[in-house]
Amino acid sequence: MDDIGETRTKFFDFPEQRLPFKLQSGETLPAVRLAYEMYGEPNADRSNVILVFHALTGSQHAAGYNPGVEGVDKWSDECEIGWWSDFVGPAKAFDTTRYAVLCVNYLGGCYGSTGPSSIDPTTGRRYGSSFPEVTLSDIVDSQLVLLDALGIEQLHAAAGGSVGGMMCLSLAVRHPHRVRKVIPIAAGLHTTALQFVHNFEQTNAVLNDPNFRAGDYYDGPHPDAGLALARMIGHKTFVSLHAMRDRARGEVTGDGPDGYEMRHPLESYMWHQGRRFLLRFDANTYVRLMTAWQHFNLLEEAGVASMEEALARTSRHDYLIFTIDSDVCFYPEEQDEMRDALIEAGCRVIHETVHSEKGHDAFLLEPELFAPALQAFLRS
Amino acid sequence: MDDIGETRTKFFDFPEQRLPFKLQSGETLPAVRLAYEMYGEPNADRSNVILVFHALTGSQHAAGYNPGVEGVDKWSDECEIGWWSDFVGPAKAFDTTRYAVLCVNYLGGCYGSTGPSSIDPTTGRRYGSSFPEVTLSDIVDSQLVLLDALGIEQLHAAAGGSVGGMMCLSLAVRHPHRVRKVIPIAAGLHTTALQFVHNFEQTNAVLNDPNFRAGDYYDGPHPDAGLALARMIGHKTFVSLHAMRDRARGEVTGDGPDGYEMRHPLESYMWHQGRRFLLRFDANTYVRLMTAWQHFNLLEEAGVASMEEALARTSRHDYLIFTIDSDVCFYPEEQDEMRDALIEAGCRVIHETVHSEKGHDAFLLEPELFAPALQAFLRS
Repeated sequence: MDDIGETRTKFFDFPEQRLPFKLQSGETLPAVRLAYEMYGEPNADRSNVILVFHALTGSQHAAGYNPGVEGVDKWSDECEIGWWSDFVGPAKAFDTTRYAVLCVNYLGGCYGSTGPSSIDPTTGRRYGSSFPEVTLSDIVDSQLVLLDALGIEQLHAAAGGSVGGMMCLSLAVRHPHRVRKVIPIAAGLHTTALQFVHNFEQTNAVLNDPNFRAGDYYDGPHPDAGLALARMIGHKTFVSLHAMRDRARGEVTGDGPDGYEMRHPLESYMWHQGRRFLLRFDANTYVRLMTAWQHFNLLEEAGVASMEEALARTSRHDYLIFTIDSDVCFYPEEQDEMRDALIEAGCRVIHETVHSEKGHDAFLLEPELFAPALQAFLRS
Repeated sequence: MDDIGETRTKFFDFPEQRLPFKLQSGETLPAVRLAYEMYGEPNADRSNVILVFHALTGSQHAAGYNPGVEGVDKWSDECEIGWWSDFVGPAKAFDTTRYAVLCVNYLGGCYGSTGPSSIDPTTGRRYGSSFPEVTLSDIVDSQLVLLDALGIEQLHAAAGGSVGGMMCLSLAVRHPHRVRKVIPIAAGLHTTALQFVHNFEQTNAVLNDPNFRAGDYYDGPHPDAGLALARMIGHKTFVSLHAMRDRARGEVTGDGPDGYEMRHPLESYMWHQGRRFLLRFDANTYVRLMTAWQHFNLLEEAGVASMEEALARTSRHDYLIFTIDSDVCFYPEEQDEMRDALIEAGCRVIHETVHSEKGHDAFLLEPELFAPALQAFLRS
């Protein structure tokens, strides 16, 4: 963190000529603001920029210390240290003495980019239920508008873990000329059956909360119980069960749900994960991003009929794919499939499998497992 | 089914001298009724009886056709054919020409045994939230009262899948003289970390439903949304993901949750599983049985300090343990651990691993995988 120091989120408002912003669904947004941060300096021809896609509930604040973002309510202690601070900085995996690292809060997000909790300029009220559906390709496309404004024609690389890795693929397939190197980490070519099921459960958990009111809850109590349950359901897929059991050793602490006596440390650990999440995330954004993940479909987004056709568009890219061997959110088989399909498409692919006890979240927690391969790949 | 034909559930009311029935928690029930069915005839000395423990949401109706049970609202079409009809009957795995097979609805259940939806004789109203906590050993102990009344001193065998398998262990460890052969199927010695997490999620799903009202919902709307979500969360662990994906091929059908457009067949498949469950199960019973599973602890229930000490009590039993290789509810490792611990304790153990594409539920669906070993073991 010291390396990057204190950061400030910047805001980019889409210029008039890029509005209204048309979404994949055909709906439009009359105004779009994106919240972003950049670490390191772009060079003269802006050819050294690395775009980093955050994970589902991440933010634009990837590195350094940021005590707060203008207009953002849910900036808890957890948000203050950048989520990839161990990866981004001088001499780190993404070396900010060489590269400018850009990270943008997703369209539909809750950390300063236009999303369901933003004011709809046509009504003067928060969007809530009226916020249109966004897809992963809408999110990617919105970031290209920012790249245009920053004069970045072609990214040196795009990197991201989890759904952020899916966005790397979406960018590479749909806008191949905008990026040279692609780094999907713990990601996949498709939404899997298990992800469908977990995501659907989580969406139901929020929708079942009577405070959700179809998304129009901003003037009343928030759907805390539903969002906390959704987070519990998701959380277990981000960690390894062994690690979770170890972390959850010790006492049963905290109140737990009304009318239920928690008796096992794992129950209080999960309960705590759910409650803590309420301090830093918006339920509408959660449901929208879940839905975007559910509907991720490279073929549809690229408007092609087969995966071969989709991947043919990314055939000139260099790929560095990471697998985490203990990942139960994006299983290693998914990256095997991705690797084989990309090689078949003609890409140059390096595929690294890291051994970790930490499960999916290893890509946030263990820079030493990723840094050497990332550094070499980015320089190559 | 033809073999057994139409069956009727019988009821057993605890005699005065066994009341009030004391539970592990120290609380008592002033009256207890158990709903049970028996297939085949006990022999003269009642030494040929096999007690079958049903799984979490099963019933006493293990075999044959039963169109309805007196006083039971939620006896849907799904309940009419016995859940183990393919296993229980003449010349089947549990051969009713040789053995009398007894199955009892759990204490706390909703198929005719005393449970939260029963009338509390001290108030004249349904128990609801005031129903005391039951443990797996309370359920086992309640069935021993019935065995006493039926004159069954020692069971030829006790068999059960899933939590029913845990009850087999509880019986064998705590009442070793009441049983000769023990058959835990797709079960474990402990509640695992993943089970803790899944069960806690499911309990939260029900508790979050405002209609649940801490369990006092019988006079108003039932917590359908919460119970359906709980079932979805549980269901995925009972089937294999491959099988689920295959079953869920085809169209998106049905309404789905309000305010959410289902677009994938897996979503409508899961939704359907949840909704269908509402026709046949009570939310209070679900939460109580989840809690009993959460709190299963052989050591506590046996009042001993170590697993070795607990299993020493079952050392004279013969065991037939089944593993299903695709089980993601009770993973194969759990039965390996059980086998090793039982062998270490001095038991004679046969451990069979069956290959199935159907996951945990294979023990309900594929009699041909289990019958030969069951028949040989029961006769040996």
